Amino acid sequence: MRASDVGIEIGTGESGPLNAITDVAGVRVGYSTIVQGDGEMTVGRGPVRTGVTVVLPHGGRASTEPVFAGYHRLNGFGELTGLEWLHESGMLSSPIALTNTDSVGIVRDSLIARETRVPGRMPIMLPVVGETWDGILNDISGQHVRREHVHEAFDGARTGAIAEGNVGGGTGTQCYGFKGGTGTASRVVDLGDRHFTVGVLVQANHGDRKHFEVNGVPIGHVLPKKVVPFPRSSEITRVPPPGTGSVLAVVATDAPLLPHQLNRLAQRAGLGIAKFGARGDNYSGDLMIAFSTAAHGMPDQGPGARTEIGMQVEMLALEYFDAMFGAVIEATAEAILNAMLQAETMVGRDGLTIHALDGERLAAILDRHGRRKFSLRP
Amino acid sequence: MRASDVGIEIGTGESGPLNAITDVAGVRVGYSTIVQGDGEMTVGRGPVRTGVTVVLPHGGRASTEPVFAGYHRLNGFGELTGLEWLHESGMLSSPIALTNTDSVGIVRDSLIARETRVPGRMPIMLPVVGETWDGILNDISGQHVRREHVHEAFDGARTGAIAEGNVGGGTGTQCYGFKGGTGTASRVVDLGDRHFTVGVLVQANHGDRKHFEVNGVPIGHVLPKKVVPFPRSSEITRVPPPGTGSVLAVVATDAPLLPHQLNRLAQRAGLGIAKFGARGDNYSGDLMIAFSTAAHGMPDQGPGARTEIGMQVEMLALEYFDAMFGAVIEATAEAILNAMLQAETMVGRDGLTIHALDGERLAAILDRHGRRKFSLRP
Amino acid sequence: MRASDVGIEIGTGESGPLNAITDVAGVRVGYSTIVQGDGEMTVGRGPVRTGVTVVLPHGGRASTEPVFAGYHRLNGFGELTGLEWLHESGMLSSPIALTNTDSVGIVRDSLIARETRVPGRMPIMLPVVGETWDGILNDISGQHVRREHVHEAFDGARTGAIAEGNVGGGTGTQCYGFKGGTGTASRVVDLGDRHFTVGVLVQANHGDRKHFEVNGVPIGHVLPKKVVPFPRSSEITRVPPPGTGSVLAVVATDAPLLPHQLNRLAQRAGLGIAKFGARGDNYSGDLMIAFSTAAHGMPDQGPGARTEIGMQVEMLALEYFDAMFGAVIEATAEAILNAMLQAETMVGRDGLTIHALDGERLAAILDRHGRRKFSLRP
Amino acid sequence: MRASDVGIEIGTGESGPLNAITDVAGVRVGYSTIVQGDGEMTVGRGPVRTGVTVVLPHGGRASTEPVFAGYHRLNGFGELTGLEWLHESGMLSSPIALTNTDSVGIVRDSLIARETRVPGRMPIMLPVVGETWDGILNDISGQHVRREHVHEAFDGARTGAIAEGNVGGGTGTQCYGFKGGTGTASRVVDLGDRHFTVGVLVQANHGDRKHFEVNGVPIGHVLPKKVVPFPRSSEITRVPPPGTGSVLAVVATDAPLLPHQLNRLAQRAGLGIAKFGARGDNYSGDLMIAFSTAAHGMPDQGPGARTEIGMQVEMLALEYFDAMFGAVIEATAEAILNAMLQAETMVGRDGLTIHALDGERLAAILDRHGRRKFSLRP
Repeated sequence: MRASDVGIEIGTGESGPLNAITDVAGVRVGYSTIVQGDGEMTVGRGPVRTGVTVVLPHGGRASTEPVFAGYHRLNGFGELTGLEWLHESGMLSSPIALTNTDSVGIVRDSLIARETRVPGRMPIMLPVVGETWDGILNDISGQHVRREHVHEAFDGARTGAIAEGNVGGGTGTQCYGFKGGTGTASRVVDLGDRHFTVGVLVQANHGDRKHFEVNGVPIGHVLPKKVVPFPRSSEITRVPPPGTGSVLAVVATDAPLLPHQLNRLAQRAGLGIAKFGARGDNYSGDLMIAFSTAAHGMPDQGPGARTEIGMQVEMLALEYFDAMFGAVIEATAEAILNAMLQAETMVGRDGLTIHALDGERLAAILDRHGRRKFSLRP
Repeated sequence: MRASDVGIEIGTGESGPLNAITDVAGVRVGYSTIVQGDGEMTVGRGPVRTGVTVVLPHGGRASTEPVFAGYHRLNGFGELTGLEWLHESGMLSSPIALTNTDSVGIVRDSLIARETRVPGRMPIMLPVVGETWDGILNDISGQHVRREHVHEAFDGARTGAIAEGNVGGGTGTQCYGFKGGTGTASRVVDLGDRHFTVGVLVQANHGDRKHFEVNGVPIGHVLPKKVVPFPRSSEITRVPPPGTGSVLAVVATDAPLLPHQLNRLAQRAGLGIAKFGARGDNYSGDLMIAFSTAAHGMPDQGPGARTEIGMQVEMLALEYFDAMFGAVIEATAEAILNAMLQAETMVGRDGLTIHALDGERLAAILDRHGRRKFSLRP
Repeated sequence: MRASDVGIEIGTGESGPLNAITDVAGVRVGYSTIVQGDGEMTVGRGPVRTGVTVVLPHGGRASTEPVFAGYHRLNGFGELTGLEWLHESGMLSSPIALTNTDSVGIVRDSLIARETRVPGRMPIMLPVVGETWDGILNDISGQHVRREHVHEAFDGARTGAIAEGNVGGGTGTQCYGFKGGTGTASRVVDLGDRHFTVGVLVQANHGDRKHFEVNGVPIGHVLPKKVVPFPRSSEITRVPPPGTGSVLAVVATDAPLLPHQLNRLAQRAGLGIAKFGARGDNYSGDLMIAFSTAAHGMPDQGPGARTEIGMQVEMLALEYFDAMFGAVIEATAEAILNAMLQAETMVGRDGLTIHALDGERLAAILDRHGRRKFSLRP
Repeated sequence: MRASDVGIEIGTGESGPLNAITDVAGVRVGYSTIVQGDGEMTVGRGPVRTGVTVVLPHGGRASTEPVFAGYHRLNGFGELTGLEWLHESGMLSSPIALTNTDSVGIVRDSLIARETRVPGRMPIMLPVVGETWDGILNDISGQHVRREHVHEAFDGARTGAIAEGNVGGGTGTQCYGFKGGTGTASRVVDLGDRHFTVGVLVQANHGDRKHFEVNGVPIGHVLPKKVVPFPRSSEITRVPPPGTGSVLAVVATDAPLLPHQLNRLAQRAGLGIAKFGARGDNYSGDLMIAFSTAAHGMPDQGPGARTEIGMQVEMLALEYFDAMFGAVIEATAEAILNAMLQAETMVGRDGLTIHALDGERLAAILDRHGRRKFSLRP
């Protein structure tokens, strides 16, 4: 069940046909979902509730056909590798992979092994790998992600409709005290004769229940949190405060934007995250990356059509940015809600349960305030 | 009429006694409000609808007793001078002055003339002066701000309750297509035995009517904009798009925060701006500055109690930042609403009128959705 | 006398025909040099040793035909207005004006008055104005720059050879304890069939004598500073420490670089500043701006050739950046040396004298170390 | 052989007793040096010429007793994980580990496994791991670093004199076409009654021979590069351009500096890197991290002595920063020279040899220009 299935409107924009990041032509998403074992946790043996998500900007090799990219940090208690080169070059020269906090390294090194041993390319790569901390449900310290999981997610990456909820890197997440997950949404931006798509994929593992609001209705006050005692195993004796977590947002668009302009979109993805009450909490890694598929090319050349000494690239006029900003904000927010609504209640390590948000119940609460539909226009 | 006067709640936090930036002990605010003439505009003769606002961090000399400060840019179509030294030193070494776009220079140079000709100080100062563009109502190209207006605002700066609405730098502003202005609000943060105050002052001149929402209710859809034809005088033939404008937020606190931590507060002021639907529009200068009064001292020493080679300063623990973030977001949003509700309908140049937002009518709309009170708790 | 006139080589690159920023086609430079009075200083009456420099990126109107631009801060005890929009838009939408610290405001407001009262343009402008502090020789507190000086510099801006030394905003400056000033240099970068020019203009008012080195020879140790007692007038009782000052570098190029790539050039201008021993001293405003003239257009469109929804722009391939970096470093360093060598000894307020660096003597010292020519190749 | 052993002076400052980062009290350094096999390379079988370096800020647990830290990027073709939290919190909450590009992940995940499974701490850690690319000599694609190497470096970390040259993460590096490595140096800063130490450790794998200069003498012109054909195995068919590489600088000090002030030191480490001619080449990851040991504490509290709601910390006055900047620049440059001079000629994969810089020969060249001693003072 997605937000649109229960008639919940986030903003006024029109979504693409799939209402997914894959509405941006060429973008591919693949998952490896790792769910193993039940009951009491033994570090290294599970239970395991985690995974890997891979986002590819196009059908070619991301590391040799970079696309323009930008970035913003709403709050920095998180990891996203590869940012120094992304900032410097303005390009995404890697697939984007998302996993759990303790497995970023294995995913990163696996991407290098896979991508650099290719004849004809410079044998250096700086992968972009992000994370959220799924240690409430998952034996995160067991570091269960293996190279084959990276390959599974990578090889499975495809265009078209994609799964949401308890899949990929979002498998074991929580969000506002409900079950979190992977979510996606999109918006179409019509600019005269041309139209562009903004697609967002989130790995949502953030938020304090008491801040949770949808369309301005403070749901977190209506649905107070069933207090789940954080398991006090010998491994974890200090419980992270409410709001601890992270949310990663990947924004894709086919609009012709330059790197510094994609930074602007990434900051607006942060406004989309804030739509449901999140504040960039201190112990949350709220990191947003944005890329444009409008042009791509060879590594030494960057995106675009070759010229004698470089590339020719198109750049959107400033007058159209407000429409892009609105699309990013709405798609990011809706992707988070989709992650929550598509996720199912999960029982994790030590029998701990995180309950899913009930979409019908949410819609009913919104109805009480006339806020299921965003617009008040007749 | 302020938001609280009509019972509109923004968030759940408790405001200080004045619900103003001046709830932060020592902070002073002064205004010069310049309203002259009516009717058709002649550049240089008016009508004039503008002013100057001065915020002083404490009762001493800001330029020789700096305080720690931070900054964030939500969108950069604006000016805030003095930022390079603020970034480098982490200190606010100047009063903060706010005025219109075309008069930033005269205000800046006047502050230097006033502050540097003082025996015993290093004769160099880098003033912090921000702006919003009030050219719809004001003969902005006439550059009517004079040195005496800067002195008036500076000399009039005081603690205690302060005026809002059509005063100071906010005199001629608009906000979401309603009359804008200067507004303020505060929140108290209780941390065990100690409590701190966050106060915010805004100069609100931003926002597209169709994005305006309060507590999640899309007011801009209910109260569509009476289309006021932008005057097409010979001076201005190209009308700025909706959303053109700016909002400046000044965040003050007595909590002991270091410069990099004040950057974090400044970014949250941006989330407060977004609470009513603003998106950091392309042609908007949405700039946020935050300072802490917890410590101040001599210019070569920076804030704090002297030691042999520097200063001793306190720093808030990370576990308390979420409370600070919430306070900043709420106080910023409420300050904007106060600016709008306290502003009165104004007739400006060429007879152009911008209408004030009617607080009773707003409250009635919110009531229809059960959203006058933020909380849904009984 | 310029560095090349005495055979001093800075690096190995080839300069353009003028060895000036105006080697970049279309770039114009104009000065207003204000030298009035002698003897004891009375604030407001002089003596005056200051001025205004204007750099125009092309023959059109900078505020309606922006060019791509970037920025870097080596140290922030300085002012450069207009940076928030430059960062956000990636464009320079203003002439660049350089003056003294206490007159930035009048220059800024004058540019607005001049540039915005033009039919057909959006009446908002955010000027880029930088400064250095010339208060040792100049009655800086007297704020002697007037609107007519801005117009003089602006109207006088032209292509071709330009004056150096005690001209424009650099009139009253010092550099490493010698007379400073305005200086310029250029380098040509050959990239196969195409060649590009990097031109730099500096306003040099920085550096501690004891750090001064040229081609690795510590000149500041050989030519110790004649101690000039800083005048202790009633106006200035606290002497800034050695190293207080600022250096502004304006980097122009016709190479097709995007905004984030121009940030990279700006940082390398900082390495050029460091070539002679400067360290980005604490009380120095070492600010570098870089722009590309490769494309320019209408304000809502940004630089480039129009497409349906934006512009088409060229981007240099990454493999050519090292050559650009070297050109920036060398041209920046040589521009500083030209500023010093072209400056003449000046007697300023209260009879204070700052002596010029003697080029012949400098060359002789370098010869003793075989360092007049940079290269050791036969 | 270190620079000081052949009488080469870098600047005028005095080094600490060890002339090493470990002159900063409490700082510990450990290495794992991995040298295995000879001859033709088979990916996964070697030859191996790599390693791991660990820098610990104090004798406690870095992840639960953070210290203040800052960062600067001269050029971003490199990786340094953990920066988002370092930027946000202003703290280093991890050991610093340095290794090769393709093994960052295993080192990162190993640090998490080691550091987070400790009773009483929050089970989240964001390690700081940097890299240089040693693929010329090392079977880097073989990813030979294992968990036991991380433990070896970590467990071996100690105060006192430390090895340089072909050790730890610097084992297989090159620098300006000579053998590179790990190097270190320090400077003492006397501020009245108190004195502080700045220590720097570098992993030097950067620079184009033709840019190499020492004390202004262009050594790279005198000692032209013996052209070593880059091995064209089936694995690597595209040779990185000259200047490809990276240099990591770790700056430690016991001076009481706040995070934003440590950013300033990190930028000056970049000026130290540039002292020998490096330009932040396009394909170089020139990343600098700086930390202060002046205060440390509990994770939720940050560095310093506890107060009721946080910590009390000291901050150095601005007047002393120039001395700190000079110390950082000199120590960084000398550390690079020590890395080169302490390194020994190495034969790596496919029999490829990179020759060490001969210190006696270097000194002789400097003598010809009177530049062995930095100062010209008698």
